[in-house]
Amino acid sequence: MGLGPGDQQLQTPGALAVLENCDVVVGYRGYIDQIANLTSGKELVSMELGQEMDRAARAVDLAYQGRSVAVVSSGDAGIYGMAGPVFRVLTDRDWDGQTPSVEVIPGISALQSAASLLGSPLMQDFCAISLSDLLTPWETISKRLAAAALGDFVVVLYNPRSRRRTWQLPEARRILLEKRSGETPVGLIKDAYRPGQRVIITNLEKLEERAEEVDMFTTVVIGNSTTYTHNGYMVTPRGYEEKVTSN
Amino acid sequence: MGLGPGDQQLQTPGALAVLENCDVVVGYRGYIDQIANLTSGKELVSMELGQEMDRAARAVDLAYQGRSVAVVSSGDAGIYGMAGPVFRVLTDRDWDGQTPSVEVIPGISALQSAASLLGSPLMQDFCAISLSDLLTPWETISKRLAAAALGDFVVVLYNPRSRRRTWQLPEARRILLEKRSGETPVGLIKDAYRPGQRVIITNLEKLEERAEEVDMFTTVVIGNSTTYTHNGYMVTPRGYEEKVTSN
Repeated sequence: MGLGPGDQQLQTPGALAVLENCDVVVGYRGYIDQIANLTSGKELVSMELGQEMDRAARAVDLAYQGRSVAVVSSGDAGIYGMAGPVFRVLTDRDWDGQTPSVEVIPGISALQSAASLLGSPLMQDFCAISLSDLLTPWETISKRLAAAALGDFVVVLYNPRSRRRTWQLPEARRILLEKRSGETPVGLIKDAYRPGQRVIITNLEKLEERAEEVDMFTTVVIGNSTTYTHNGYMVTPRGYEEKVTSN
Repeated sequence: MGLGPGDQQLQTPGALAVLENCDVVVGYRGYIDQIANLTSGKELVSMELGQEMDRAARAVDLAYQGRSVAVVSSGDAGIYGMAGPVFRVLTDRDWDGQTPSVEVIPGISALQSAASLLGSPLMQDFCAISLSDLLTPWETISKRLAAAALGDFVVVLYNPRSRRRTWQLPEARRILLEKRSGETPVGLIKDAYRPGQRVIITNLEKLEERAEEVDMFTTVVIGNSTTYTHNGYMVTPRGYEEKVTSN
């Protein structure tokens, strides 16, 4: 687990070693195709998007049969990734915690690739919030957005907008604006470290005009009350006092 | 930037390439020593802990002189790491955003190595909170803890406890207990992926008894209301509905 396909500069030796040593690779078809150069000679189980629990069940079946299985996840398998479905299936089957043995290999998550392209937005406390209300009721998500605003967290939005889910991002913006200035910097990072990468810096007020540029491959980073922009970069000072003394 | 010293399985090719191609390596003495095998032939500027702004200023000076400089940071340089001081120094000097050119190479942060060793705790919205009140007033930190509790975020605590800062962790526990059950799973990960690594799973109620085992090399992961433990692992289901249907 934990191989970010396509982002060669971000692949860790740990993830590559797992791929090298496994018998079977299980994953979403698009990812399996992207890492074809790393899987020659392996049995491949490629499945469709949205079947995470099925993919996990298949991987666990094979592991119980004694096969060494690698489950591919984009970003970090441990952050909204395939580690979840796999542990869920294992615990539902009353796994003894030892056989099959399971290892999660951390990778670079969207919040990190986004932050690295924006400057230094994550120098103070932050939270990650997924705007997908497929598995979490919007009421819970909305409560989290309000709490994030209250706590003055830097906020990273995962799954901000898809063709069908278009009202969640404007609603998130509205909730944050209740506590945060319209001038709060916002970074939109599209296809980070992939062909067509785009980095847009705007603010909470103007986010409304840019919303149509946001899709499922975009990560949205919203600054806290101390975040500022400087010539195309987004900077959160490490501390409040630091800002007071130097600005 | 972004090389996690000591954690060879987590080093990305991007970070290694930067080290390979730079003229000068700037960093905390301990880290510079740990990556001695990767820096032969390089000019080394090793400085003491706590001098982050000085290290950044030194790196920026050298970059303005036309040298190619790598700044070493543990974990992810973009998460509470050296990217902050570097961008801070650059913006204070009215950097034009282009010369010197700056690249942040993301790495594996403590929240990820901790999560990977615990199972799948970060499958729902989470926040990272540093308990160090050196640069952030405790009042702000305490407000964030309360907000995190209110939003039912999984909470990852950075810098939970040092020899001098011992009351912050019990206080964080007290604040979270106002909204969260004493049975909420808590993972303590000490020296992740390093010699002496320890993984302890306890709960919010019993955290008090384990507090003395927590130090600056420990990351604390506190579950949300749906997180459960299973034979030594900590699992947050991906969604509330998922829990309802399968448990």
